[in-house]
Amino acid sequence: MGTPNNTAGGEENGVMMKVVAGPGGYILQDVPHLTDYIPDLPTHPNPLRSNPAYSVVKQYFVHMDDTVPQKVVVHKDSPRGIHFRRAGPRQKVYFKSDDVSACIVTCGGLCPGLNTVIREIVHSLDYMYGVNKVLGIDGGYRGFYSKNTIRLTPKTVNDIHKRGGTILGTSRGGHDTSKIVDSIQDRGINQVYIIGGDGTQKGAAAIYKEVRRRGLKVAVAGIPKTIDNDIPVIDRSFGFDTAVEEAQRAINAAHVEAESAENGIGVVKLMGRYCGFIAQYATLASRDVDCCLIPESPFYLEGKGGLFEFVEKCLKENGHMVIVIAEGAGQELLAESGHANDEQDASGNKLLQDVGLWISQKIKDYFAKQRKMAITLKYIDPTYMIRAIPSNASDNVYCTLLAQSAVHGAMAGYTGFTSGLVHGRHTYIPFNRIIETQNKVVITDRMWARLLSSTNQPSFLGPNAIVEAKKEEAPETQLLDDDGANSGINIDGLLRCLRCS
Amino acid sequence: MGTPNNTAGGEENGVMMKVVAGPGGYILQDVPHLTDYIPDLPTHPNPLRSNPAYSVVKQYFVHMDDTVPQKVVVHKDSPRGIHFRRAGPRQKVYFKSDDVSACIVTCGGLCPGLNTVIREIVHSLDYMYGVNKVLGIDGGYRGFYSKNTIRLTPKTVNDIHKRGGTILGTSRGGHDTSKIVDSIQDRGINQVYIIGGDGTQKGAAAIYKEVRRRGLKVAVAGIPKTIDNDIPVIDRSFGFDTAVEEAQRAINAAHVEAESAENGIGVVKLMGRYCGFIAQYATLASRDVDCCLIPESPFYLEGKGGLFEFVEKCLKENGHMVIVIAEGAGQELLAESGHANDEQDASGNKLLQDVGLWISQKIKDYFAKQRKMAITLKYIDPTYMIRAIPSNASDNVYCTLLAQSAVHGAMAGYTGFTSGLVHGRHTYIPFNRIIETQNKVVITDRMWARLLSSTNQPSFLGPNAIVEAKKEEAPETQLLDDDGANSGINIDGLLRCLRCS
Amino acid sequence: MGTPNNTAGGEENGVMMKVVAGPGGYILQDVPHLTDYIPDLPTHPNPLRSNPAYSVVKQYFVHMDDTVPQKVVVHKDSPRGIHFRRAGPRQKVYFKSDDVSACIVTCGGLCPGLNTVIREIVHSLDYMYGVNKVLGIDGGYRGFYSKNTIRLTPKTVNDIHKRGGTILGTSRGGHDTSKIVDSIQDRGINQVYIIGGDGTQKGAAAIYKEVRRRGLKVAVAGIPKTIDNDIPVIDRSFGFDTAVEEAQRAINAAHVEAESAENGIGVVKLMGRYCGFIAQYATLASRDVDCCLIPESPFYLEGKGGLFEFVEKCLKENGHMVIVIAEGAGQELLAESGHANDEQDASGNKLLQDVGLWISQKIKDYFAKQRKMAITLKYIDPTYMIRAIPSNASDNVYCTLLAQSAVHGAMAGYTGFTSGLVHGRHTYIPFNRIIETQNKVVITDRMWARLLSSTNQPSFLGPNAIVEAKKEEAPETQLLDDDGANSGINIDGLLRCLRCS
Amino acid sequence: MGTPNNTAGGEENGVMMKVVAGPGGYILQDVPHLTDYIPDLPTHPNPLRSNPAYSVVKQYFVHMDDTVPQKVVVHKDSPRGIHFRRAGPRQKVYFKSDDVSACIVTCGGLCPGLNTVIREIVHSLDYMYGVNKVLGIDGGYRGFYSKNTIRLTPKTVNDIHKRGGTILGTSRGGHDTSKIVDSIQDRGINQVYIIGGDGTQKGAAAIYKEVRRRGLKVAVAGIPKTIDNDIPVIDRSFGFDTAVEEAQRAINAAHVEAESAENGIGVVKLMGRYCGFIAQYATLASRDVDCCLIPESPFYLEGKGGLFEFVEKCLKENGHMVIVIAEGAGQELLAESGHANDEQDASGNKLLQDVGLWISQKIKDYFAKQRKMAITLKYIDPTYMIRAIPSNASDNVYCTLLAQSAVHGAMAGYTGFTSGLVHGRHTYIPFNRIIETQNKVVITDRMWARLLSSTNQPSFLGPNAIVEAKKEEAPETQLLDDDGANSGINIDGLLRCLRCS
Repeated sequence: MGTPNNTAGGEENGVMMKVVAGPGGYILQDVPHLTDYIPDLPTHPNPLRSNPAYSVVKQYFVHMDDTVPQKVVVHKDSPRGIHFRRAGPRQKVYFKSDDVSACIVTCGGLCPGLNTVIREIVHSLDYMYGVNKVLGIDGGYRGFYSKNTIRLTPKTVNDIHKRGGTILGTSRGGHDTSKIVDSIQDRGINQVYIIGGDGTQKGAAAIYKEVRRRGLKVAVAGIPKTIDNDIPVIDRSFGFDTAVEEAQRAINAAHVEAESAENGIGVVKLMGRYCGFIAQYATLASRDVDCCLIPESPFYLEGKGGLFEFVEKCLKENGHMVIVIAEGAGQELLAESGHANDEQDASGNKLLQDVGLWISQKIKDYFAKQRKMAITLKYIDPTYMIRAIPSNASDNVYCTLLAQSAVHGAMAGYTGFTSGLVHGRHTYIPFNRIIETQNKVVITDRMWARLLSSTNQPSFLGPNAIVEAKKEEAPETQLLDDDGANSGINIDGLLRCLRCS
Repeated sequence: MGTPNNTAGGEENGVMMKVVAGPGGYILQDVPHLTDYIPDLPTHPNPLRSNPAYSVVKQYFVHMDDTVPQKVVVHKDSPRGIHFRRAGPRQKVYFKSDDVSACIVTCGGLCPGLNTVIREIVHSLDYMYGVNKVLGIDGGYRGFYSKNTIRLTPKTVNDIHKRGGTILGTSRGGHDTSKIVDSIQDRGINQVYIIGGDGTQKGAAAIYKEVRRRGLKVAVAGIPKTIDNDIPVIDRSFGFDTAVEEAQRAINAAHVEAESAENGIGVVKLMGRYCGFIAQYATLASRDVDCCLIPESPFYLEGKGGLFEFVEKCLKENGHMVIVIAEGAGQELLAESGHANDEQDASGNKLLQDVGLWISQKIKDYFAKQRKMAITLKYIDPTYMIRAIPSNASDNVYCTLLAQSAVHGAMAGYTGFTSGLVHGRHTYIPFNRIIETQNKVVITDRMWARLLSSTNQPSFLGPNAIVEAKKEEAPETQLLDDDGANSGINIDGLLRCLRCS
Repeated sequence: MGTPNNTAGGEENGVMMKVVAGPGGYILQDVPHLTDYIPDLPTHPNPLRSNPAYSVVKQYFVHMDDTVPQKVVVHKDSPRGIHFRRAGPRQKVYFKSDDVSACIVTCGGLCPGLNTVIREIVHSLDYMYGVNKVLGIDGGYRGFYSKNTIRLTPKTVNDIHKRGGTILGTSRGGHDTSKIVDSIQDRGINQVYIIGGDGTQKGAAAIYKEVRRRGLKVAVAGIPKTIDNDIPVIDRSFGFDTAVEEAQRAINAAHVEAESAENGIGVVKLMGRYCGFIAQYATLASRDVDCCLIPESPFYLEGKGGLFEFVEKCLKENGHMVIVIAEGAGQELLAESGHANDEQDASGNKLLQDVGLWISQKIKDYFAKQRKMAITLKYIDPTYMIRAIPSNASDNVYCTLLAQSAVHGAMAGYTGFTSGLVHGRHTYIPFNRIIETQNKVVITDRMWARLLSSTNQPSFLGPNAIVEAKKEEAPETQLLDDDGANSGINIDGLLRCLRCS
Repeated sequence: MGTPNNTAGGEENGVMMKVVAGPGGYILQDVPHLTDYIPDLPTHPNPLRSNPAYSVVKQYFVHMDDTVPQKVVVHKDSPRGIHFRRAGPRQKVYFKSDDVSACIVTCGGLCPGLNTVIREIVHSLDYMYGVNKVLGIDGGYRGFYSKNTIRLTPKTVNDIHKRGGTILGTSRGGHDTSKIVDSIQDRGINQVYIIGGDGTQKGAAAIYKEVRRRGLKVAVAGIPKTIDNDIPVIDRSFGFDTAVEEAQRAINAAHVEAESAENGIGVVKLMGRYCGFIAQYATLASRDVDCCLIPESPFYLEGKGGLFEFVEKCLKENGHMVIVIAEGAGQELLAESGHANDEQDASGNKLLQDVGLWISQKIKDYFAKQRKMAITLKYIDPTYMIRAIPSNASDNVYCTLLAQSAVHGAMAGYTGFTSGLVHGRHTYIPFNRIIETQNKVVITDRMWARLLSSTNQPSFLGPNAIVEAKKEEAPETQLLDDDGANSGINIDGLLRCLRCS
């Protein structure tokens, strides 16, 4: 299959990612293709050709050379950076519609939009490609080998996008690669759609490798899911917009509680194990928040420039305040307080102490000890009320496009890929790019400065820390043309999308 | 002011837009600057320098050479297309904080987010630049000369983003350039923020020209407002995301009504005088719509491939259907039916017949005449219920950034510009680029095809029409790298944003 | 069956209602019972006896003498007024669980709560009485003879209360008594649950009479449905509370539109063909309304004390106003304007002109002619958006109790009755009491005075009219102890419920 | 003042409640009147006489003999039970409009509707009685002596009913009777409106007594506030309906979480320190709850008929379950577990352990120990998100009527009373009746049986316990005519209202 002529990388890379030097000097981090290990696969014309809906579209099929840059570079001529393969329908497909037997599995925590993605995979397979054999795997990875499958038809999934959660059920862990691939083989499944986070995509990578090792004609496609928005490379994860919207409700309640009490403090814990995007955007959108604490920006409690001082100042000036804290914030402080926790959940996520309860108690203790001011603190944890709602309109459209991209990719014979939006364009990204790092809020970025400016909270950084912070995330490229481009982390795409979303 | 050394264009262009050939071969469509006509203006260091919130930000100030391409071009070397000046804070400002006397005016129809924009202009001026003299103009343009102004402070506007509408009031028309500029001069105003649509921005352009003619040191900044999303160049207009979300409610109701009746038809009219974006995205998000009619895609009622045939087919197959129609759809059919209307509203918009009532009656008449099938049709017009709601979280963030950009621009001495998001980056765009054309749904684009595919509705195009449709919108450039890049209309940015929104 | 020993009334009354002089001097308007025309029916112990949920309840079964007064009379000794039979489970039932074959039909317009009533009839029959043969009639009365039935089980109806509309479908008209009773007989149905308004309950009465004429052991139970709350005798109709709540959204929008324009007028049309309860309570709850127009309170446009004068006054004083108008208000004015309409819909309801459009045009014309003041008027008709929503929590509880009452009644052998709340107690009411008159807002009542006082609108009554209004509704009893007790119309129960709801 | 000729009771009773044997044999528990201790107070005609809004109302003024029975008794002739004085405007008032100086204070926890009550007191005083001197006391009782007052006008309170919380602020404790009465005297206040719960009303009683002791012409009126609905005598407390509605959101989320996991359990804690009304009605309205635990119905965890057994059964049968638990449920079990807590909050409420966290841990521990089944439990505590929302439409109307009643009462010279709905009629109730007991769910009532039947949960009662439960709440009267009449607790009014609300 195709253009890449000089694949780089070792064995691992060769399996997981095909790095290619593109004609314009860019690097294409390509995804695997079934033909990489099964030669001479026959192709078929794409059934979309005869679909009246698409007959009007100019240049409907994506050209096989079409790629998308991770960073847009506009002013300079030299190195064009890293590109990904462009998502979309291809002229040729590697599956006959009648031969496809697809399955869908959802893993990990709930996230608004799961049902929309399921619905749209089923609809795309059926309406675009005439595929009507789609199975749902019950209850996450372990459902492959321990449960019956669920038959999915356009009709049975027709209204599910109006409900929260996942109709397939979900679970953490349960990943047993060889049992799963046995099941895939035994059931005759040849397209596997895996919706889940970090750990889930690692599992998907393992499934892909085992499928390849066995030489099976099975396309493995991932759709990255994380309400926290911590998946790297991609602009935004589905459900994030809905979560930010729904978080407003909790912030409003905290604000009302705080305003109605003397020295009232409302504390809201929001999702974000390793990154504070939900907290950040919920704060920016709400305008009722006086302090936003996230994992990326360490803070301290006591002394000058510390949290307690700021709380006291807020109460003196306004009589009340609202604090938003991401669940992963301040973990180093909890560890110091002896609240360390080395346990992990079944997905391998470190079990975090409830920082919301902890910080609430700390603040209460401080003011109790001070005896200067009686406070009233109300703590709200809306996590499960946010996770469980149906996706909003914009996430619905986004989930639809992610699902369609995944289906186009699998039909076109790509495998070992995730479907993702990069810089506003749909792409196929190799698994290892998705799972190797995590997206984080860049605190030397303008967006975080905007937040600091709107809340008026301290940066919790001394002069030295500022120098460090600036140094820490040295630009990976000199081609700086955007807010976030000066960071190794693709905050850029996110900002852009959120600005416009 | 600065780099552009070879300004092109005639007198008009020279005033309204400074076209410059950039170093990389691109064309910069620059905005005017106060120094264009007032030489030797003193500059001052940007007060943000000493703002602790911004002290951590790397490269906070936008470089004066920084531009943003309208089209991202990645594979080819040659002409880099059109660029706009990058928005953001500058090292130097042309106003001392104490000298600034700003005013804000909102014109035209309501749109979610107006109050957020007002709030954020006031807050940005105060918190970022220490400006505390901000006036609200009451009731649109005519408020400049016929009403008292309203004093705006961070405190008075603190909660207004939670309310729909505009606290300043709005109106159509009332633009009398010289009275307005007299008032600006008399009141000593030197920054004018104008929030409004197409017609309003034309008015802003006229104000800018008159201000320049009189040689006043007054920065005129526009913030484009159109719930329809029909403003060209920019990716998306504020309030659009909220409108699409809220439209779901009406579509749901239409669906319930239709499903509960035998041969039930629910008709929902949505905003969109000249473009069908709200109808299109509300349809894609809802998944309950069977037919979406927009101004860009002409349709016909009778005969093969016509609407009546499709309605009949839907009812026979499903027993019910939902039709979404943009207010500007089918105007040519109304004209034929003798429902033409040459009147205009005070903004100069053609007064449209109510196409929702018209199409509802036509459908009822058809089935009454056919006598084959008794139908039950319910018509819903949620327009004012959509316009009047507060903006959602993502529009709140977006409005904040638009307002901040405008304030940064005015403080930096730019004038005659609108603040807009181009390809995910905030820019300053000359007025004439905003008002000269309108953004439209490209019906030869994949996004429209996705809609056709999801609704299964006819394209209403014969083979010849298809050829025409494809020809009509010839690419303005050969550098095609995106869905919408093959159109002269910047659907691209919108799609991208919505994909990720 | 039982106590009544001196049935009054002619043939018709004897069939439709058993009027009995009760021991305490009251009149019991009793409902028919299967034993009235089928003697010697065997009885069975109520299966609820052995239901653990009910084992704790003291005096669970309703005593057969238990009645509920229409008017509560407390101070005097003499005539105790009219009583109805108390609803609830009886010691003995007249059906064996296995023998029951029930059906449910929904007729007329949509109303929040229809699906909850359907769900709870199915659940009550199954969980309380072990009945599992329940059929849904498709699409209203005509579904009895022209369509297949739908099997309803606790599982299939489990989630339907979260959706608006009716899963059974509905229609107007289609009532053919003998075809319907043929179908009941042919299908072996012996319990018929009929949910619908005025016209539907008339149909139910006809079905009951025909069933009785044929001597069938079929219980016919009605559940009154009217979003307008115009059914007499009962305190409130289900869905009303939800409708009032949802109407707030439209009123808010109208208020925002009005406030944002100069001389802005927002007009909202709400449901209420013959009575203005929704308009009245939505106005009282919202507090944003300046004028509420209902069918019961005639108004006039021109001249002193007229609507135009009041509108002009409001605009001059506040710069904007909100008008709420019930759909049946001002029909006499429309008739005078030559907008009369003698058509009827299939339910026999007079087709009303759209009074909202009419009044909006009249107001626009008035100000256009006056040339004193330019106004901006926005008209909102949220009718179908209100009707189609799911019922709120309080309506859900209410629908549950209505459904349970109906099931208890049918199981106990009562027939020809509707299930209704009278003075806060669940009762069985003879059909003819429900269909003979309509509930109306009493404009000489304190509740209407409260509205006038809160809106400050004119009463539109001259001194003579006031005398007339007071005279018109002479008290039917001298026992006045409540707001509404001095009217022949049971406003009392409604007020009470709404006060506390 | 007036009719009562044979006052009963000792000193305390004579001050707090005037018990009178009424003509029909009933007992009137009357409220004090200013003339009880200030003879020869002049009266004035009620200004409502000349209010055009009220001119149409028949019998507008409440007759001075008018009373409302606590229990409606209909069938028997003998003792008519306890009556309260009917609320409403009187012919004569004891204050001249210009002389009135009113104040409003809100105390205790937040409850939807507080702002509506404040608004309506201000509006009623102004629009009905021409009183325009109304002060807000800042931050609860202690605001009387430690803070400035807030001037309240119809305009400043115009939109506050759309916001949650209380604009006046609130606090617990801070009651210092003599400082408060000093402040009342010093500021010249002569009408005191006190909105708060149990403890607050006790404080109001003390204020009334001190005011009387000092012989001040100051009317003290209470408006009972408790989101839990645990105030006796009255039908329902304001905010309760809103709370039940909003609780649905949390239950839905718990249901989605539970359904999406294998052996998923969703636990929702709802308000209810001593009574389970919110839990009960939220459960009945939602239909997604499998187990509802309330303070009134003791339960046990282990063994046959215990909670663990039921949870296990639910999971085996359905794969998931939802538990709703009132905050005061199972406190005896926590005490046994050594989680006892003898602390109290500033209102004197016992500080409860978080039963939601406790029960969640207990269930997790049980299944961890059993090792039979891996469960996923999600715990949601929506308390502050519920308390802080604005009141819904029906609570808005209800709050309006409560406020109006209080104002009518104070203007008419009544004092030492609370405004309350009894059996659907507005009354004035002596403080001691409100504070002496608490309203509770009667678990031998049909309503609780309905819940048990709908959830299918065990009653947690052995045969002996059932006998006890039935015995415990012996009927206070033999005149049983309603569900709840067989209990000493007025569940009756509540049920009735909720049935119809």
